[in-house]
Amino acid sequence: MRILIAPDSFKGSLSAQEICEVCEDVAKRHFSNIEVFKYPLADGGEGTVESLVGCTGGEFRIVRVSNPLGVYIEARYGILGNSDTAVIEMAEASGLNKIQEKQRNPMITSTYGTGELIRHALDQGCKRFIIGIGGSATNDCGIGVIQALGAKVLDISGNIVAPGGDGLLQAHSIDLSGFDPRIKECSFTIACDVNNPLTGPNGAAYVYAPQKGATEEMVVTLDSGLKNFASLIKQQIGVDVESVPGAGAAGGLGACFLSFFQGKLQSGIEIVMKESNIEQIMEKVDIVITGEGKIDTQTKCGKTPFGVATLAKKYNIPVIAVCGVLDISHIQLSSINIDAAFSIINSPCNSADAISNGKHNLKNTLYNVIKLLQLKNK
Amino acid sequence: MRILIAPDSFKGSLSAQEICEVCEDVAKRHFSNIEVFKYPLADGGEGTVESLVGCTGGEFRIVRVSNPLGVYIEARYGILGNSDTAVIEMAEASGLNKIQEKQRNPMITSTYGTGELIRHALDQGCKRFIIGIGGSATNDCGIGVIQALGAKVLDISGNIVAPGGDGLLQAHSIDLSGFDPRIKECSFTIACDVNNPLTGPNGAAYVYAPQKGATEEMVVTLDSGLKNFASLIKQQIGVDVESVPGAGAAGGLGACFLSFFQGKLQSGIEIVMKESNIEQIMEKVDIVITGEGKIDTQTKCGKTPFGVATLAKKYNIPVIAVCGVLDISHIQLSSINIDAAFSIINSPCNSADAISNGKHNLKNTLYNVIKLLQLKNK
Repeated sequence: MRILIAPDSFKGSLSAQEICEVCEDVAKRHFSNIEVFKYPLADGGEGTVESLVGCTGGEFRIVRVSNPLGVYIEARYGILGNSDTAVIEMAEASGLNKIQEKQRNPMITSTYGTGELIRHALDQGCKRFIIGIGGSATNDCGIGVIQALGAKVLDISGNIVAPGGDGLLQAHSIDLSGFDPRIKECSFTIACDVNNPLTGPNGAAYVYAPQKGATEEMVVTLDSGLKNFASLIKQQIGVDVESVPGAGAAGGLGACFLSFFQGKLQSGIEIVMKESNIEQIMEKVDIVITGEGKIDTQTKCGKTPFGVATLAKKYNIPVIAVCGVLDISHIQLSSINIDAAFSIINSPCNSADAISNGKHNLKNTLYNVIKLLQLKNK
Repeated sequence: MRILIAPDSFKGSLSAQEICEVCEDVAKRHFSNIEVFKYPLADGGEGTVESLVGCTGGEFRIVRVSNPLGVYIEARYGILGNSDTAVIEMAEASGLNKIQEKQRNPMITSTYGTGELIRHALDQGCKRFIIGIGGSATNDCGIGVIQALGAKVLDISGNIVAPGGDGLLQAHSIDLSGFDPRIKECSFTIACDVNNPLTGPNGAAYVYAPQKGATEEMVVTLDSGLKNFASLIKQQIGVDVESVPGAGAAGGLGACFLSFFQGKLQSGIEIVMKESNIEQIMEKVDIVITGEGKIDTQTKCGKTPFGVATLAKKYNIPVIAVCGVLDISHIQLSSINIDAAFSIINSPCNSADAISNGKHNLKNTLYNVIKLLQLKNK
């Protein structure tokens, strides 16, 4: 039996890589004639770099960059096995998790660090960029990113605008003369699973800025700032990003990549699956095991298990999911293309226990699932 | 595919019968070509009457009998499908759950009601008796039982002794002239999974009387009483029961059945499996699903899933267990003859939620298990 194990992480409990290793370990220890193909995945959010470096035999790079408040931190990105593709999670430099809760303030937080990561990858010779933009602390429409790459965003007096959301309203022109010329020669694929436009009631400021620390007043200012910056982009780049779905992702970073980088927004899991080359293995396996911390009706919305299961169905391969919380009735399972699903929890417990017993419980569940698959009827 | 579903109850959540029905329902609703054979089982304890009536197409009888304190209550027993076999749980009449906690006192609690149940079944023409003796409130060595059936236990003055453990030390002779003569024509099989002798430190009084309300002083008195009554039995019946394994079960009721009824003590699950005729179906099925509220290393000690699994192994049939709590590592599963086991719990929860969601969760788990069994590899 050939098993493809292609899970997302069980957030806070097990990385996708660990889940793959547990599966391989169980198969080797307790069964014979099982070949396990390991594809630790992610959906463009947390774990994407790790997943793609793992799947392609790539390498990590660790770089000193600015956090959202301009303090130097170490940030990691990946260069894939093919060696000309960089995979970057913006949250590694500019994430909400890089600052304390009381420091959250999208008027001043900047994406500058993300731009530094891109610059470093350019210096390494990377030509293709895959950029995950979830979990940002920022609402600067990527001003920080382009400034780190040589652009100058200037106010009416010709001075460089303040970093963060503050700069959006001040911005009066964009000087791209110093903008890194290598960018034109590169492709940028942005993992983005939200459809928010840049501005307005469904835009970046109104929907996401509050969780980044914006007061109601700030939200109004930020939205005006985004409008102002969008009109500058339209004037100078000739791209109208204001209402493009996904432009509002990551505090307007979506719009930045769409315009200054000619980036393409794509579903994270689709990017990850394509880059991991998982499809090539589908024809060779008998069963697919996927999983995530929680499997529910939301799994359909761009989550890894749905992406994997949908691809597997194309090849008519049975799909089993393992998870921490299984919150979908058996009647609805087929709507997420999963044949059978199992929670690894095996007794009443609280979340902390469930998380800390994850590895042990996963081992048991994978054993029992594989055992069932191998049962020969009389 | 032919599935034999043969579980015990999930205590407090689902009866064995309900579990069987859920399995049949899932198979009918969601799969084709599955035949389900339902054997709701029990291990000689709670649920035994229900199980055997269910498996054999028998009937219940409800009878007014004395509770452990002589108060009339309604008690249920079963007559199996073959119509000459009665199945009686002593706890239905003389159980700890028939009196309040503050009423517990093995000096006065009596098995008289259990004797009344036997008498009623004799009147119905029953010739074979299967008696479950778990959960007793008593320590009277069955004096109540035999008195309800016409024997007289007399003190040194020729008066009938007090009911309960008090009578044991008073007993000086046993008058069996009025003892129901039909008993000699009947067979008595006693479901008993404990090995305690009647007396001494491992005997009925020392081991079990405290949980029935005995003080330390009472325990000493009860143990002396059991010794006294054992010597009377030896004198008058010629049977030496004092150190026979199981004689100490149910406050000495084991000894009573061994001597006055020429009963045989047997493992409860073995009796239930034999009477349910489950073995005849084993050759016909492809898979056995068993289960209990908790599956752990103790399952080996006379519990239903172990009995079922052991029988299935004789026929080389794969065995799957479903349960509430799964507290046994996959490495140890084979020691209880189970191939694969699944908890029905699917998220962190407390016991009360686990119990009240039992049916819903069982449905999901059985669906997923059967789906896995039916998966055809590419």
